[in-house]
Amino acid sequence: SEEFSFTNHSHRRFNPLNDSWVLCSPHRAKRPWLGQVEKASTEQRPEYGPQCFLCPGNTRATGAQNPNYPSTYVFPNDYAAVHKSQPDCPASALAQVAGTDASDELFRVESTRGQCSVVCFSPRHDLTLPELSLDEICEVVRTWQSIYTELSKDPDVGYVQLFENKGAMMGCSNPHPHGQVWALSDVPSEPKKEMESLKKFNKKHASNSSLHACLLCSYTKAEEANAAAGESTNRVVLQNDSFMGIVPFWAVWPFETMIVAKSHVSNINELDALQIRHLAEIMQGLTCRYDNMFQCSFPYSMGIHQSPTANHPDADCCHLHLHFYPPLLRNATVRKFLVGFEMMAEPQRDLTAEQAASRLRALSPIHYKQNTA
Amino acid sequence: SEEFSFTNHSHRRFNPLNDSWVLCSPHRAKRPWLGQVEKASTEQRPEYGPQCFLCPGNTRATGAQNPNYPSTYVFPNDYAAVHKSQPDCPASALAQVAGTDASDELFRVESTRGQCSVVCFSPRHDLTLPELSLDEICEVVRTWQSIYTELSKDPDVGYVQLFENKGAMMGCSNPHPHGQVWALSDVPSEPKKEMESLKKFNKKHASNSSLHACLLCSYTKAEEANAAAGESTNRVVLQNDSFMGIVPFWAVWPFETMIVAKSHVSNINELDALQIRHLAEIMQGLTCRYDNMFQCSFPYSMGIHQSPTANHPDADCCHLHLHFYPPLLRNATVRKFLVGFEMMAEPQRDLTAEQAASRLRALSPIHYKQNTA
Ligand SMILES: O=P(O)(O)O[C@H]1O[C@H](CO)[C@@H](O)[C@H](O)[C@H]1O
Ligand SMILES: O=P(O)(O)O[C@H]1O[C@H](CO)[C@@H](O)[C@H](O)[C@H]1O
Repeated sequence: SEEFSFTNHSHRRFNPLNDSWVLCSPHRAKRPWLGQVEKASTEQRPEYGPQCFLCPGNTRATGAQNPNYPSTYVFPNDYAAVHKSQPDCPASALAQVAGTDASDELFRVESTRGQCSVVCFSPRHDLTLPELSLDEICEVVRTWQSIYTELSKDPDVGYVQLFENKGAMMGCSNPHPHGQVWALSDVPSEPKKEMESLKKFNKKHASNSSLHACLLCSYTKAEEANAAAGESTNRVVLQNDSFMGIVPFWAVWPFETMIVAKSHVSNINELDALQIRHLAEIMQGLTCRYDNMFQCSFPYSMGIHQSPTANHPDADCCHLHLHFYPPLLRNATVRKFLVGFEMMAEPQRDLTAEQAASRLRALSPIHYKQNTA
Repeated sequence: SEEFSFTNHSHRRFNPLNDSWVLCSPHRAKRPWLGQVEKASTEQRPEYGPQCFLCPGNTRATGAQNPNYPSTYVFPNDYAAVHKSQPDCPASALAQVAGTDASDELFRVESTRGQCSVVCFSPRHDLTLPELSLDEICEVVRTWQSIYTELSKDPDVGYVQLFENKGAMMGCSNPHPHGQVWALSDVPSEPKKEMESLKKFNKKHASNSSLHACLLCSYTKAEEANAAAGESTNRVVLQNDSFMGIVPFWAVWPFETMIVAKSHVSNINELDALQIRHLAEIMQGLTCRYDNMFQCSFPYSMGIHQSPTANHPDADCCHLHLHFYPPLLRNATVRKFLVGFEMMAEPQRDLTAEQAASRLRALSPIHYKQNTA
């Protein structure tokens, strides 16, 4: 009788980091696609965009003028989702929206403060992260470090969320290479869930060696062995002494990856000069492979998860990692839609993590534009 | 000093149904949009599409021929994500992808079976749900009932997920009006989370009257009172004796709504003829308002949550409701992107639930195409 095969049969995989399941239907990639086709991100841009709010020397919507910055540049988001100061929300304020006799169990609300900034990765309007030099990417990492350090000192900041939306498909409204920081007074839902999992794992394994007491230390260790064991168990795309770029066993997006520290590092600030360089190397090798896959600027949302702030009581449990969620599935214009079933029931993917990793590994780490130059 | 205002200040709201938070930044709707612009869904289609896989009489990709169906039509999905029979996944199979000494805590996997079908809502290629007559929508509901009844009898079915992806923006690959059914052997993550919340609420309030022992019975009751109390606390878009169409207090998508039974109904099968009509009325009034908002075919993903199967041990706790997740924000071509911050940290919205409800209420329940005919 037929045996179970991960590449032919539907299965669910569990994500121990955020305590969720994903449905994997590897045979589904074969169905024909008659749906929405996107615009491929292959446009050429000038080195300087006269209308661009992020280019050096230009005036922003609010009237502020950007300096002639030579590398990275951080400024407050002109349309921040949260503000540094606003009135508190007393229990009585709830009456505004929920009437007076509202059960607070069903109508729970809290005021939230914070700060939002924009982080330009380069003065050049025409480049993207994978097209920067290694030194320039190191400078981006050092800029993230300063942001994290500064905001961590503010007692009103509970979490520093660093992220990048790359490409119009990911809601990015300006192609100038940049990321964002949203620092909130509360720890947001996703990092909170992950922290709970890390703490639970830590508690359960505390009597073991310190290495195995961390979920992500154990995971990277196991994946290093799996990678060495052969192609069919290899989810590692690239690695060096400090970091690993991997398609997690429980990936949701077709070519989702995670860059994870191989030793226990709680936050970006703990990285020394060599580790910064190692992180930049993996970021470069991974994002170049992304662009090379369909010879386009590969869209994604990227986010850094780490300890809430340097002095948070659970900071030690946290383990620095970066998630990349790219939507493309078949080519530069056909994406995966996480819609009806995924929103209402459970995320679903059309190829295995091993298949995605194998395709990414096979690609050159040198950017295709550089190859043809 | 300034007082807290829900329409001016950032706040988080809690979703007690699936135990999550949403960040609400109502002032953010004011920022200019320079990002991706979608194709408005305003195309005219013929009543019959010769190339359409769903039209009556046509031959599908697999060679099967559709009958000349007069109202609704259900057939097996030719590219099903799950299949009725496949080999089990013994523990030893894990070695294929995770090596032999993999810790099962980090590499958890289970085989999953099921059935996927397509539900055509009408033989007419040119219509969508809001353009069907009330009788035709009643027939759609009755078709869902039969599907649920049939699948509930199958001991291999653990949950019947009924859903609709409407519009190319929501990954729908064929404009012919249709929904889907994915019936899985397991209860998927989302309905499972909701069931846990409903059970917890029930346990906590079991000593109260039976009405208040259900989270959604209590919620609809509270929202009826809030709606009667005035505009600023009114999230109800429309209601009749059996159902309410409401922007939930904790909505994530800009114009997200929920259709919820006002009395305790566990699944669609419990609806009698009058309740079916009442549900169809609310579906029609709500989806017509959606189309009227930007005078286009308003895209959304819709899903029905109810008891897993009729004889599931926790079936009584469940409370029938339909979620509508529409992406449009500003007009027919500018959508909300739930990307970087939302994926990595927490969902964020740009207007309050009360503002969304007020805009939906102000629209005509008669479809704009009918108005101009
Ligand atoms: O089954 P369809 O309509 O081809 O596919 C659509 O709905 C599915 C279920 O939500 C998704 O997994 C697909 O990504 C989407 O394109
Ligand atoms: O801040 P931006 O780039 O204008 O906006 C983008 O990122 C935000 C944070 O993920 C999202 O809330 C917006 O929907 C998206 O368009």
